[in-house]
Amino acid sequence: MTTYQAPLRDTLYSLLDLHGYAAHYGALFPEAGLDGETVRAILEAMGQFAEGELAPLNASGDQAGARWAAGRVSAPPGFAAAYARFVADGWPALAQAQAHGGQGLPYSLHMAGAEFLQGANQAWCMYAMLNDGAIKTLLAGAAPEQLRMFLPKLVSGEWTATMCLTEAQAGSDLGLLSTRAVPQDDGSYRITGNKIFISSGEHDLAPNIVHLVLARLPGAPPGVRGISLFVVPRRHVLADGALGGENQVSCLSIEHKMGLKGSATCVMAFDGAQGWLVGEAHRGMASMFIFINKSRLGVATQAVAQAQAAHADALAYARQRQQGRAASGAAQPGACADALIEHADVRRMLLLQKAIVEGGRALVHHCARWVDLADGPGQEGRERAARQLGLLTPIAKACLSELACEAVDLGIQVLGGHGYMTEWGMEQRLRDVRVTRIYEGTTGIQAMDLLGRKVLADARPLQEFADEVRAWCAAWQDDAGMADLVTRLRAALRSWLDATAALAERAPDEPDLVGAVAVDYLMLAGYVVLGYMWARAAAVSGGRDGTDAMHAGKRQTARFYFDCVLPRITTHAWLIEHGAAAHGKIAAALI
Amino acid sequence: MTTYQAPLRDTLYSLLDLHGYAAHYGALFPEAGLDGETVRAILEAMGQFAEGELAPLNASGDQAGARWAAGRVSAPPGFAAAYARFVADGWPALAQAQAHGGQGLPYSLHMAGAEFLQGANQAWCMYAMLNDGAIKTLLAGAAPEQLRMFLPKLVSGEWTATMCLTEAQAGSDLGLLSTRAVPQDDGSYRITGNKIFISSGEHDLAPNIVHLVLARLPGAPPGVRGISLFVVPRRHVLADGALGGENQVSCLSIEHKMGLKGSATCVMAFDGAQGWLVGEAHRGMASMFIFINKSRLGVATQAVAQAQAAHADALAYARQRQQGRAASGAAQPGACADALIEHADVRRMLLLQKAIVEGGRALVHHCARWVDLADGPGQEGRERAARQLGLLTPIAKACLSELACEAVDLGIQVLGGHGYMTEWGMEQRLRDVRVTRIYEGTTGIQAMDLLGRKVLADARPLQEFADEVRAWCAAWQDDAGMADLVTRLRAALRSWLDATAALAERAPDEPDLVGAVAVDYLMLAGYVVLGYMWARAAAVSGGRDGTDAMHAGKRQTARFYFDCVLPRITTHAWLIEHGAAAHGKIAAALI
Repeated sequence: MTTYQAPLRDTLYSLLDLHGYAAHYGALFPEAGLDGETVRAILEAMGQFAEGELAPLNASGDQAGARWAAGRVSAPPGFAAAYARFVADGWPALAQAQAHGGQGLPYSLHMAGAEFLQGANQAWCMYAMLNDGAIKTLLAGAAPEQLRMFLPKLVSGEWTATMCLTEAQAGSDLGLLSTRAVPQDDGSYRITGNKIFISSGEHDLAPNIVHLVLARLPGAPPGVRGISLFVVPRRHVLADGALGGENQVSCLSIEHKMGLKGSATCVMAFDGAQGWLVGEAHRGMASMFIFINKSRLGVATQAVAQAQAAHADALAYARQRQQGRAASGAAQPGACADALIEHADVRRMLLLQKAIVEGGRALVHHCARWVDLADGPGQEGRERAARQLGLLTPIAKACLSELACEAVDLGIQVLGGHGYMTEWGMEQRLRDVRVTRIYEGTTGIQAMDLLGRKVLADARPLQEFADEVRAWCAAWQDDAGMADLVTRLRAALRSWLDATAALAERAPDEPDLVGAVAVDYLMLAGYVVLGYMWARAAAVSGGRDGTDAMHAGKRQTARFYFDCVLPRITTHAWLIEHGAAAHGKIAAALI
Repeated sequence: MTTYQAPLRDTLYSLLDLHGYAAHYGALFPEAGLDGETVRAILEAMGQFAEGELAPLNASGDQAGARWAAGRVSAPPGFAAAYARFVADGWPALAQAQAHGGQGLPYSLHMAGAEFLQGANQAWCMYAMLNDGAIKTLLAGAAPEQLRMFLPKLVSGEWTATMCLTEAQAGSDLGLLSTRAVPQDDGSYRITGNKIFISSGEHDLAPNIVHLVLARLPGAPPGVRGISLFVVPRRHVLADGALGGENQVSCLSIEHKMGLKGSATCVMAFDGAQGWLVGEAHRGMASMFIFINKSRLGVATQAVAQAQAAHADALAYARQRQQGRAASGAAQPGACADALIEHADVRRMLLLQKAIVEGGRALVHHCARWVDLADGPGQEGRERAARQLGLLTPIAKACLSELACEAVDLGIQVLGGHGYMTEWGMEQRLRDVRVTRIYEGTTGIQAMDLLGRKVLADARPLQEFADEVRAWCAAWQDDAGMADLVTRLRAALRSWLDATAALAERAPDEPDLVGAVAVDYLMLAGYVVLGYMWARAAAVSGGRDGTDAMHAGKRQTARFYFDCVLPRITTHAWLIEHGAAAHGKIAAALI
């Protein structure tokens, strides 16, 4: 019933107006010639691919689902052909280094455009979008022979990649995994064990699949300090790069899921499969986290993408569907009823969606800038960028996935009964986006990572972020139109920092504290970060033509964010202060 | 993967300990002999029916779905047989008057037991649970001939009923409906028009279906003041009560939906179908609201039922699934990891579920008491009960459906990746419960009903509720264990009343105000009402054996509710004060 449209206008606004990407690219990628027009042209082409090739397969892919038969998996009809076109058009290589056969464009540009693909067809992207993380992981640790064997085909997209972490008994707790790797005389390893929840572990989009597998070497210490990373191809690769016979890797079954039905979520068996160590022995978690962090930002992008599509569909519906009369008198007196959008409650829902979508997109682009800088020049700059990514990745992943679920859910509510019906596409979006709060680490896991590892264990990342916000506030405090938002942003930042200081003091004496309040802490942090994004949008659009609809909309939505969304931090701050006492130790209640 | 268990213990706690139903029944239904043991025996039998007959059909019903072929609808395998047993066991007649062939038991008892059926299989209940509202509606307005024709079979459950309101262009705005009714010489009417979203409009569980249809008489005024109600059987009923030929009623198709797939949601065509006027001409909305209000409480029950089942499954999973170590040191040092429930964040989610489920159940039972009293002795008592129901029904329907979605959603989160997998049943519960925020009027519609019609248009219902809470607080304020909760409950009530007073003052000058803040107002009201329920639970269990696990759990969960859930009203109160200014008039932002 709806047609996906890539949100090109707001993406360009966020990249160019809000984040100054033209200057960023000029400084960091001078040879790429990425001025505003070039950026637009690349994103426009990506949007066309998303709209033309992927969106038409979204509902049909959900209905057909991935299919397993005798160890083989078929993606839904059309998925393989779209992937072939994706590869033929050179999209997988966009942000890969030219030295590896890529086009050398910035990863941030890939991330911005990836939103369009995710919004058009999240399930399809599960096959197509994992190579980046695998390439980065291999580059950081694989031996030259393995790089020669796998890199070119992963860069071109001819082969796809997976990350094989989870086992039946080892989900959030990877320390429990039991897959074994036994060294062979030829320098390879035999990998044996079963993995579950492996996205695209088997499919018919590519002739080979490169698995990155966590396993234990003989005599490895227990827990996460005894895990090593291996690269295991589905089919052997001959010396000349041609495909050989099948490796001992098989897909035992695929899962039936709430959503993302077009994506094959596989149970994989490695039965003495040949593989090679990537990076150091027992340091597999560190290697894998390169992959995981990339994927977490990818999930944040997915979340924004689904929220965007839900907002666009809800807005279109609210404009054309006529029910009831505006409270202030007929808005369309000639019609039998007014459009839904004339009702204040409907506008409330649409504005909330818009605040989430455009604020979330700005945050993803903010993170993407740090991704570029983390690979940029200068040791100091790279380290600072890595710290900011460490801080912001769990926030972006978890807070945006939580808010995206809220936004898509509101999309159903705007459509009412039709939102619950399959033909309108909204319910599929909710089923699909729901997984973003789970995979690559649940919201609870992200929250404990943020509070425990990224904040309490090292004061610098948050300090640096706070300094950045304070500097921005200082620059805008004397602008008459911005003074109020600057004051409120400062207060919000203060409440984040106060909560942090209080927790730092209490945590040593209260072992359950971090776990008990982490999710509230993460949400509070997320609302502050989004407040920073919206304040910047208000500043950027405040100086623009007062009659320009987009800029007027930005100013009003910023105001809405500060009036109606940011105040949620009050409750989270209260819960951070009182939550642990209430449920940190209660178990008796759970009978 | 899970087995539904009727929550008999907490249901009896709520009915008998919290609400004093034994005394209530003794006063209102003295002849029924409903002491605690009798109540338990009836509920136990209903729970066994739910567990034994309905729960086994829940997942299979979701997978098979209702099927349409050539105008006929088949419910999923097993549904018809279970319904036959339901009728044979006499369950439909439980709370119907003995004068009409019923067993004369209180409606509140039926509601308490209905939760078990809904929790075991919400989709099946869509066929089985609509007769009560239809009977009540017919009794209030149908002519004696129609009562003779339809009542006995509806009371026994041999036939089922529908409510046919929605049309393609008329959803929340029923004033737009265009189905026509033309009077005939024999006193009947010919009904012509199409209806959509008709639950159980056609199926194979019963030989006849009694449709209650909203339509317009010739020359009727436009809008809701020109709507009349008609009773239209699927098959004609002969003078001797036997079934005749088919009426001009047909099912054109059924919907594909997010959930509730076992329930047939029908597009119905009335092509000059024979029907009879129920109640006065042009007063159909008033008649239908008898049905609708019954159904809205039914939806509140469904919401609690699904949240209950999700909580039970999540709790069982958190007890057996071992991942990671408790922050305070190994809780199960002999095992490779501790149970999930040892993690404070998991306990937070489980406690939030429990607070929603048991608080929600108490609220449903609180409403059910008023339902009994609304049919009870004394004009004054009946009117007061009707006012309380008017106030509490939209709160129970909308606030509990919102919170139930949150609780079931948390169930997925506790299960992590398994929550997203079909085999664990949790994702079906989320798909099924999601509709409770939509049908019988969306949350937005309930909220405007509450604020506009039930509160601002008449001060008495809220005043009486506030008096009740204040009296309760006065009775408990000197109890050392309760003083703190009493203070906090009073403050929460005060913030509800303050918000009401402020809105009453502003509303005349701000036409969009009610719509803009209604949902926040409803949620604030809901949290206060649930606070009243939890304070009462704390009081009841405070006096019980300190070592009894159930009572200890009640006390701790009450504390959790006041510490971690009730504080949400701060944000809602803020939004009620500031929300309308932020989005009441903004439309420019929505570009």
